[in-house]
Amino acid sequence: MMTANDGLKQELIEQFGTPCAVIDLDIVDRNIAHLQSLCDAAGIANRPHIKTHKSPFLARRQLDAGAIGITCQKLGEAEVMAEAGIENILIATNIIGAARSGRLAALQRRIPLKICADNPVSLAAYAEAGQAAERPVRVLVECDTGQKRAGVETPEEAVALAQIIRDDPWLEFGGLMFYPPVDGWPATQLFLDSARGGLGELGLVADIISTGGTPNLVNLGRLDGATEHRAGTCIFNDRMMMAAGVAAIGDCALNIFTSVVSRAGETRGILDAGSKTFTSDTGGLDGFGLIREHPEARIHKMAEEHGFLDLSGCKAPPAVGDIMRVVPNHVCVAVNMFDQLVAVRGNDIVDVLPVAARGRLV
Amino acid sequence: MMTANDGLKQELIEQFGTPCAVIDLDIVDRNIAHLQSLCDAAGIANRPHIKTHKSPFLARRQLDAGAIGITCQKLGEAEVMAEAGIENILIATNIIGAARSGRLAALQRRIPLKICADNPVSLAAYAEAGQAAERPVRVLVECDTGQKRAGVETPEEAVALAQIIRDDPWLEFGGLMFYPPVDGWPATQLFLDSARGGLGELGLVADIISTGGTPNLVNLGRLDGATEHRAGTCIFNDRMMMAAGVAAIGDCALNIFTSVVSRAGETRGILDAGSKTFTSDTGGLDGFGLIREHPEARIHKMAEEHGFLDLSGCKAPPAVGDIMRVVPNHVCVAVNMFDQLVAVRGNDIVDVLPVAARGRLV
Repeated sequence: MMTANDGLKQELIEQFGTPCAVIDLDIVDRNIAHLQSLCDAAGIANRPHIKTHKSPFLARRQLDAGAIGITCQKLGEAEVMAEAGIENILIATNIIGAARSGRLAALQRRIPLKICADNPVSLAAYAEAGQAAERPVRVLVECDTGQKRAGVETPEEAVALAQIIRDDPWLEFGGLMFYPPVDGWPATQLFLDSARGGLGELGLVADIISTGGTPNLVNLGRLDGATEHRAGTCIFNDRMMMAAGVAAIGDCALNIFTSVVSRAGETRGILDAGSKTFTSDTGGLDGFGLIREHPEARIHKMAEEHGFLDLSGCKAPPAVGDIMRVVPNHVCVAVNMFDQLVAVRGNDIVDVLPVAARGRLV
Repeated sequence: MMTANDGLKQELIEQFGTPCAVIDLDIVDRNIAHLQSLCDAAGIANRPHIKTHKSPFLARRQLDAGAIGITCQKLGEAEVMAEAGIENILIATNIIGAARSGRLAALQRRIPLKICADNPVSLAAYAEAGQAAERPVRVLVECDTGQKRAGVETPEEAVALAQIIRDDPWLEFGGLMFYPPVDGWPATQLFLDSARGGLGELGLVADIISTGGTPNLVNLGRLDGATEHRAGTCIFNDRMMMAAGVAAIGDCALNIFTSVVSRAGETRGILDAGSKTFTSDTGGLDGFGLIREHPEARIHKMAEEHGFLDLSGCKAPPAVGDIMRVVPNHVCVAVNMFDQLVAVRGNDIVDVLPVAARGRLV
């Protein structure tokens, strides 16, 4: 039985081969509007994280829908976005390596950046860049309230860094940045309230109080004082977001089209997409992706170019040459493996978007 | 105390920032020569797999050292190598998606390819490409002797595919391809002997009997009838090869230079290199890499841009801003994350090599 999807699959494989990353712009548009409406309803500014799509075209769509600016994870991503004319950028990591290469100063000369820091060494590197650029760097102090990643662990440390920032002519205090665990918002409130007290004693006000994460959209509006939110994954969604209960399969905008290239065993098969396509991120889930045509199949293992299929649960397993649409576990890292995204609306190919900020490691 | 390494670290971060992938060409040269000498000693032709380095420059060095040709995993890799003037190429996967996109025919028109197949659908795609290119495609039948990946499971199936190849004017039978488990060489011998009998009855001779894998170098010469070997990782080596007992730390040619960007907790820290740099491949090992300066530190978790350090075992833990040289668990997938490799000899930067076949998914 030929379906409308089969026509698209045929067209995709003939034009691009497999594996091929395909986004449905109808779903993307809906996801962008949904995020904006959640932020609007909570009275929180929307600063989406572009690490998910790495595309200036899609960043521009987010801004057009109402976002006040964007978040980048690396300086190299910010460089790509600035090149595309986007100026309101927060870099949400300590970027010592990029700072010391001189590239931070070069970008700061072009646009006034906001960057986070959780230590004096980062601050010194930013101040040096600010001085070289002859424009102070605006710094958010990164605060940890449970993720145990980067971020100072106490309000006192946050205030101490704010003081260093205040006292440096090439730095400007911009506010506080949080990435709270989904169940860590009460603790974050305590941290924030205490830090604001200390900042007040220094004569400082945190203009920006930033929170982050797509799963945290359920908490939007729960942090008194929060001004903006950084959500990335929800533009595409993925199997992890489905597992977290914040997206349904119909909200997943990106599918990886991959061919079954081997069926050497009765209950097993091989896809032409492995860890070089999906990455090895499980995101804590069983298997490496959801096959839309065969949800009962498991992608149980990855080699670089091979996805290992366990088909023992399939009544009608796929044959060699069949094309599968797979929702990846973690869409952000999968996008980073592709040079381009094929854009469709329903079953029509409408565009090819370069993943312009792909692989920007520095 | 300033060491010679510190000077290199300073130069690297100023020129390239961190994370930065650095190969030592002295070690690379030694590793290339060592592989060739192992193959020569066993009387087996050397057809190194370029998936590890993805660099025409390094492929050329392998050929200059005595390799008879190269192995690629994807058509896109073969395209890059052919563009660089390399003509003796084996593609070691079923490439249905690339075949149906017309790219196989285009490359086959330029150079006579060798490709593997384990099923009639792949063969049909190759025959179509051969016809379009007006040059038959040389096919190796892929045989599985325990990896349960691609490859027919029985000699009878291998012979049946060889017959299809023989009977198709646009295909040519090239031989058999194996990727035996390290402890699966006796089973591979039984498979091979049986298949050769069947091939003989068809009037066919397997000119190429190919084996693969760096860990299998210990088995080189143990398969009667084998003609060539595909080894990839041993040009750089990595923590997995060390764990497999086939490389020492001094044989590891690639280090990822990464900065400590956060030390928010007493016994923990954050690197500016996460899964977007190392990938999430553990290779079955504990942690995600070996820090040369602090082998007692564990990289215990990865976020996209953050490597999580457990420093509880460190007497003198690194400080923010310190640059670490990390041997990745799995070097092939890490190389695929970089657009370039910085080449050094000892502590001197001597070249920058584009990872020209990076990200060739199709």
